[in-house]
Amino acid sequence: MKLASLKGGLTGARDGRLVVVSDDLAWCADAAHIAPTLQAALDDWGRAGPALASLAVDLQHEVIPMMRFHERDAASPLPRAYQWADGSAYVNHVELVRRARGAELPESFWSDPLMYQGGSDAFLAPRDPIPLADPAWGCDLEGEVAVIVDDVPQGASRDQALAAIRLVCLVNDVSLRNLIPAELAKGFGFFQSKPASTLSPVAVTPDTLGAAWQDGKLHWPLLITVNGRPFGKADAGVDMTFDFGTLVAHAAKTRSLGAGTVIGSGTVSNRDADGGPGKPIAEGGLGYSCIAEIRMIETIRDGQPATPFLQPGDRVRIEMKDGQGHSLFGAIEQEVVTA
Amino acid sequence: MKLASLKGGLTGARDGRLVVVSDDLAWCADAAHIAPTLQAALDDWGRAGPALASLAVDLQHEVIPMMRFHERDAASPLPRAYQWADGSAYVNHVELVRRARGAELPESFWSDPLMYQGGSDAFLAPRDPIPLADPAWGCDLEGEVAVIVDDVPQGASRDQALAAIRLVCLVNDVSLRNLIPAELAKGFGFFQSKPASTLSPVAVTPDTLGAAWQDGKLHWPLLITVNGRPFGKADAGVDMTFDFGTLVAHAAKTRSLGAGTVIGSGTVSNRDADGGPGKPIAEGGLGYSCIAEIRMIETIRDGQPATPFLQPGDRVRIEMKDGQGHSLFGAIEQEVVTA
Repeated sequence: MKLASLKGGLTGARDGRLVVVSDDLAWCADAAHIAPTLQAALDDWGRAGPALASLAVDLQHEVIPMMRFHERDAASPLPRAYQWADGSAYVNHVELVRRARGAELPESFWSDPLMYQGGSDAFLAPRDPIPLADPAWGCDLEGEVAVIVDDVPQGASRDQALAAIRLVCLVNDVSLRNLIPAELAKGFGFFQSKPASTLSPVAVTPDTLGAAWQDGKLHWPLLITVNGRPFGKADAGVDMTFDFGTLVAHAAKTRSLGAGTVIGSGTVSNRDADGGPGKPIAEGGLGYSCIAEIRMIETIRDGQPATPFLQPGDRVRIEMKDGQGHSLFGAIEQEVVTA
Repeated sequence: MKLASLKGGLTGARDGRLVVVSDDLAWCADAAHIAPTLQAALDDWGRAGPALASLAVDLQHEVIPMMRFHERDAASPLPRAYQWADGSAYVNHVELVRRARGAELPESFWSDPLMYQGGSDAFLAPRDPIPLADPAWGCDLEGEVAVIVDDVPQGASRDQALAAIRLVCLVNDVSLRNLIPAELAKGFGFFQSKPASTLSPVAVTPDTLGAAWQDGKLHWPLLITVNGRPFGKADAGVDMTFDFGTLVAHAAKTRSLGAGTVIGSGTVSNRDADGGPGKPIAEGGLGYSCIAEIRMIETIRDGQPATPFLQPGDRVRIEMKDGQGHSLFGAIEQEVVTA
């Protein structure tokens, strides 16, 4: 089943209105009689989950009132969440970004997941502009996959964590690259360097992803364009050192996780076929899921980066398609604007 | 006005039931007809705030149905929140804790606030036990003051930030000290080393705090006992390098803050009268608001720490009283238990 939150909604504009969306993203059906918001559904998934699944079947059979689904009308599936924690499962990406900062990659990073606590009081809607007050901050996209979990008890195993995954979606984890070095040097992690992130229009249950959801990883390329030009198509299932079960269990090691917690994969990143860092799409490679990576490659090759960070007017699109070319989660499509 | 959330509640057990509490914490009145939860009230403060204030006047005049208020029945005022960000406004504390870790204090820490993004998917109720899976993790209390804000626009000034403060409360920011060095060394800040925090039974509007709320600081001693023995009584209004207006504006520099965001002061800490680190209460000093500080003093003085971190069975109490000895926020009172 696929779920979305339309802008507006019964409980005020802040949490949207829960709808079930058809697999082809063309139609949706109001789910407010089951749960007014996605958070309310997640709070009571044992009851709401099966009821929503049944509604999704009715929608697929076209036996209930339905509306056209327009991605532009969608808020974030969770317009705000009680927790957003982002891993760095593609250690290839971590290695490149750290090299770009002149920092070494500790050996432990291959066995102990990196994860930071992000802000989740507001996720941008998938077509919302990215408000940037100062282009010198170095605005970057980060294309990621994320899962939304049910309650997870403290100390949960990887298998328990995997079983608690209710939904999968895409993320644009907006980063202000030029604020990161000074902020991380303070020792307390990201704060000002991580403004609001964006979730895809639709969140999808693992069973609906079929064989592409395997071993806690999602096995499709993440398609990214910048200003309409192909920028990345790295496979989210490849080079993912830590699967989502491992990431969720890491988050739950010393505390329980509340229903509706969003756990991100970190920037999707594939090595090149020869084991080196990936090549640009124009050179036959799989490209990148963030600008920092291509700037690193440019620095290694040419002594300095050539690709600028995002400026007002730049447009980013993040999407994932199945083998038939159908969009799975709808598209994140955002323009950077002066705040 | 004083607000609390009783356990249980109309919208399921997760968010509690909003009540207005009398200034002496003896009585309360149901506020569900105004807003079912504190978050709902904060989402619509322009309407709910004045209505709750009016209800508080009626409660004070005893002209409405009222119930006894028992702190043990209180959930956290926000049993879960969309954001919890914790500053380190008492740079004295930061200096001591870093010295204990063998880390230097950069000069910039006196002008640029430290702040970390914390987990807020579950705040422990004020009398909930602290679940600890492994005593070797080094469980510590951290006594703090926090504010709960309305919507704050990106780039808000200190004055705008101050004006957006709706409520003040106390926090026990539970920390797992022995997990911190390795986690901070990874560079992404705290995660596993910061399990669920605890808020005081009652949150109070700034106007109700009277003259004690001044210049964005709360000017009363924070009273802390460990196993019934006085442990700290540092004044929250003294040695606070960054006031709450500055902390909230820091949090809002690159992104807006959603209503209900909780911003903490960091561990309250006073220098000694002679300018050195504070003395234990037993030696005539003001004591400490966390165990890490006294361990640091012991290390400086005796070559090694003597006070152990919290073990299962240990009890912590955090409270603040006005000049007449009346509890302002009720008491956080927690026992550490084996998880």
